Amino acid sequence: MEPARTSPTSSAKGWAVQAIAELIGTAMFLYLAVGAADAVDALSGGADYIGTSLAFGISLLVVSWAFFRISGSHFNPAVSFSSLITGHISIPQFVLYFIAQILGGMVGVALARGTSPSSQVVGQVNMIMNGESIARGFWLEFFLTTILCFVYHMTVHEKNRSTFMAALPYGLTLFACHLFATRYTNAAINPARAFATSISARRFAREHWIYWFG
Amino acid sequence: MEPARTSPTSSAKGWAVQAIAELIGTAMFLYLAVGAADAVDALSGGADYIGTSLAFGISLLVVSWAFFRISGSHFNPAVSFSSLITGHISIPQFVLYFIAQILGGMVGVALARGTSPSSQVVGQVNMIMNGESIARGFWLEFFLTTILCFVYHMTVHEKNRSTFMAALPYGLTLFACHLFATRYTNAAINPARAFATSISARRFAREHWIYWFG
Amino acid sequence: MEPARTSPTSSAKGWAVQAIAELIGTAMFLYLAVGAADAVDALSGGADYIGTSLAFGISLLVVSWAFFRISGSHFNPAVSFSSLITGHISIPQFVLYFIAQILGGMVGVALARGTSPSSQVVGQVNMIMNGESIARGFWLEFFLTTILCFVYHMTVHEKNRSTFMAALPYGLTLFACHLFATRYTNAAINPARAFATSISARRFAREHWIYWFG
Amino acid sequence: MEPARTSPTSSAKGWAVQAIAELIGTAMFLYLAVGAADAVDALSGGADYIGTSLAFGISLLVVSWAFFRISGSHFNPAVSFSSLITGHISIPQFVLYFIAQILGGMVGVALARGTSPSSQVVGQVNMIMNGESIARGFWLEFFLTTILCFVYHMTVHEKNRSTFMAALPYGLTLFACHLFATRYTNAAINPARAFATSISARRFAREHWIYWFG
Repeated sequence: MEPARTSPTSSAKGWAVQAIAELIGTAMFLYLAVGAADAVDALSGGADYIGTSLAFGISLLVVSWAFFRISGSHFNPAVSFSSLITGHISIPQFVLYFIAQILGGMVGVALARGTSPSSQVVGQVNMIMNGESIARGFWLEFFLTTILCFVYHMTVHEKNRSTFMAALPYGLTLFACHLFATRYTNAAINPARAFATSISARRFAREHWIYWFG
Repeated sequence: MEPARTSPTSSAKGWAVQAIAELIGTAMFLYLAVGAADAVDALSGGADYIGTSLAFGISLLVVSWAFFRISGSHFNPAVSFSSLITGHISIPQFVLYFIAQILGGMVGVALARGTSPSSQVVGQVNMIMNGESIARGFWLEFFLTTILCFVYHMTVHEKNRSTFMAALPYGLTLFACHLFATRYTNAAINPARAFATSISARRFAREHWIYWFG
Repeated sequence: MEPARTSPTSSAKGWAVQAIAELIGTAMFLYLAVGAADAVDALSGGADYIGTSLAFGISLLVVSWAFFRISGSHFNPAVSFSSLITGHISIPQFVLYFIAQILGGMVGVALARGTSPSSQVVGQVNMIMNGESIARGFWLEFFLTTILCFVYHMTVHEKNRSTFMAALPYGLTLFACHLFATRYTNAAINPARAFATSISARRFAREHWIYWFG
Repeated sequence: MEPARTSPTSSAKGWAVQAIAELIGTAMFLYLAVGAADAVDALSGGADYIGTSLAFGISLLVVSWAFFRISGSHFNPAVSFSSLITGHISIPQFVLYFIAQILGGMVGVALARGTSPSSQVVGQVNMIMNGESIARGFWLEFFLTTILCFVYHMTVHEKNRSTFMAALPYGLTLFACHLFATRYTNAAINPARAFATSISARRFAREHWIYWFG
């Protein structure tokens, strides 16, 4: 295994494979995550943060483990954007990844709803709630997305002996982020996930400043 | 350690050892999983999805870790079938694995019931419930089994640096699948498990299409 | 690192260090586990199986990770006994380990009770309950201890690439065992733990038969 | 990767980078942990020990994974102090780490409160409760901090094959410690965390005695 394959930057065919991997991966990730979160919500009335956080965190962990060597397993436009800023993918690659992720997210959520009873279709829409203000919600999402991108960057792009199992901290970081934010913004963190669960415009995390340290 | 040993395809004696490993492993897996799920159900009235999902996921994780180098730790006819389709095991091997898994599942579930009070014997039977339709239940099981087989395939057959610990994502994938499907179909995903917990015919996942990508 | 150090069988000084490691490790393990299980029980009235299982499983995971290279991190007379049967430790070593584990268990539990309010002192005593019979309880403990010893044996003594992180499946196996048995026997699995939490005689797992396969 | 880089002891510029890493890391850790614990407490009225323990344990796990190769990811004055005692960092380094951790903790907690509704601001203050006495509380914190430092020391300073993923046992140890102590002292274990959540003086763990074994 050449280390370079974990974030390949070459060849048109490679790009197509990666984009398809991002599409299928994002679909699998959100199929598992949204489906499981719906089931937990249906039981608990939306009040089981550990359950929904596990749904998102563990789903990301296992699917990104499977696809890691092919596309780097972003499954998240914010992570792709930060990889673009730090020079690990190029602009056309970012566009491909972005389209694949948005499409994949829509497919995954649609299948999750299609294979379970339809009563929970509004369960995972992101919105401000529980006394949270819009400004605070923005910064909350902003900081959490930053942390997620930062952990991804440090474990994947900064090559080291644990890069091969980077899917583990990546998924667990999402778990911790959801444990925090589910109460206040229903925890998007991932624009593809927010878009796919049907709210239209959502802020793109501007996490690039933190990478001046990375 | 020769990498080849993780999915050996040779020698009659090796086949026998593998089949015995699949039998004992499936029995241990379902002994732990069904027993723990029964205990959690008895306490919560069947309403603790996290508990039952942990029971299945962590049981698979640890038992497949133990047997991984011997038989590849399928413990699941669907995974064996997908390995057959992708050419990693031969037809006679698949038949051996299949028989071992069905027998092992029956032994494991019988022992789990035999060593705990008998009042929960119907707890883990797979059935459609909570407003789920049969068609949706079929596709739900189908997609989840596909994802499980896919993760197994990508982490085990596509050799890489994390193959030696593939039991970790394998078990956690089952956890995520159960978190989704426990509410709707009681989460079979594994025909040996469905058979062993006493419903007769259950669909074989036709997951091979996805491997044209793998 | 010489692989041989993971289960050293030589030198009197090495034996003393190992015995001390087993004593301190068992004390740390049961200090964390019993203390945390007491706290969870005090809140839930003994009805949170996931919480108590996490207390035991994760405590074993982290403490055995820390001591792994020194003594092999048994912390359990049953595991030591099975290591004796399979020839990985000698009889005098087993005696030393056994004494260290019993003493360590008593120290750990005493400290856990000494540093928290005394109202929960009966919380973790092992007894048959919830309609379980004595015979079934015996076999339940027997099978679960067998599985624990088997996983330990396969990941530690059968050297492989994941031996260095064997503490992970070892701890998670205990988690799964507790999830099953907490309801019925309060989950001893470990004679040192059962003894330390104050019931006198408890069966020694006769798990050696399974090793004829190993 | 030179092993030496995991706990570097040289060069003024290296020290500055490490101190900044400790500051940002401690801020990220406590931002995630306190924010998530607040959210869980707001839902459960402070009675979900598993949730708050997961918040702290998993947050530490992922952030220390990200920063591990830069500063060793202490994020805790007690761990830094024990590293000083055992000679892995020098006195000026310890002072830098200490200041960075205290500042980082204050920043992290302030941001966590700033980006969520303000009603939970007293949630994570450490105090003695649920019938615990001050003396027992002291020893409880003392023993748990000792165990945390000991696990850190054994997995990081005693170099071995699993050092590269030492963040995993480090985070899970904190999880187990919190599961024990949340009920009695609200689980500080980390002076920077205790300070940052606004109680003034808190004992420095005197864990150095245990290292005479290490």
